Amino acid sequence: MPAVSSSATRILGIDPGSRLTGFGVVDFEGDRARFVDAGVIKTGNGELSERLEVIFDATRELINRHQPDTLAVEQVFVSRNAGSALKLGAARSAAICASFGSGIALAEYSPREIKRAVTGTGAADKAQVQQMMRMLLSLDTLPQADAADALAVAVCHANASRLSGALAAAARRA
Amino acid sequence: MPAVSSSATRILGIDPGSRLTGFGVVDFEGDRARFVDAGVIKTGNGELSERLEVIFDATRELINRHQPDTLAVEQVFVSRNAGSALKLGAARSAAICASFGSGIALAEYSPREIKRAVTGTGAADKAQVQQMMRMLLSLDTLPQADAADALAVAVCHANASRLSGALAAAARRA
Repeated sequence: MPAVSSSATRILGIDPGSRLTGFGVVDFEGDRARFVDAGVIKTGNGELSERLEVIFDATRELINRHQPDTLAVEQVFVSRNAGSALKLGAARSAAICASFGSGIALAEYSPREIKRAVTGTGAADKAQVQQMMRMLLSLDTLPQADAADALAVAVCHANASRLSGALAAAARRA
Repeated sequence: MPAVSSSATRILGIDPGSRLTGFGVVDFEGDRARFVDAGVIKTGNGELSERLEVIFDATRELINRHQPDTLAVEQVFVSRNAGSALKLGAARSAAICASFGSGIALAEYSPREIKRAVTGTGAADKAQVQQMMRMLLSLDTLPQADAADALAVAVCHANASRLSGALAAAARRA
């Protein structure tokens, strides 16, 4: 994998789950997006704490390997039952904790913001997100669903950063 | 603080919460318990991710300072609403993640197991747990409620370890 150029921004997107945690690494330079890596962290069938260790270690490894500028994490959907919310909150926390001490920025987006950023609608289904990621990043094959969601978090953050950058530039000109 | 003797076991108990996380460090040697440290980690009013960083860093600092053999964590009470469960699961995960890589053991107990271990009843209230910890550990003052709960997790783990040790010894003799 070529090193990221100095003007590009590298984003590690994470779609946390206690069983399957998607990840996606994308470089952005202006309007161009370049795929770097994506996949799914499978946490196995152990105790929750063992699964948290898998997420924590794997996320830390991804940060060390890819040196992203920002970790962008999908916010958790809270309208589930309390038991699911507890595990999902724990999985998300493990990914976030893996970034502490590394000096990288942290950004969080709701599932609705992410879908809207990558498909134009907050109600897109998983298959639409997979198709969009394949097209946008010129992938040969459809990314796995959780990996596609993680790539979408990265794209959502790049869009949000560009927008806030453009607004700041407009404010300076005004 | 004197160093822990070689035959003693040092336990760091954690009672996680997204606003207040109690901690307690106790040395156990046979039936004797010795208080080492206790207090409350206040996570402030920031974003959840900022509060998770406070818990993660503070727990890591406690592990480095006290070198416990085991981190014993209160399991989360899941019958709350999904929003509370999400935050509580995340707080608990941050404390657990702080132990990864340190080589210390992890143990988890439900609130009911902890109360039963330290007061003889699974339905004890917070004030009873505080009184029991003050007596058991010969403290001059009543520990703060979250710190008392954390000390109780440590005591619960020591009891469980002694019981399993006694059972293993009985099995060897049988």
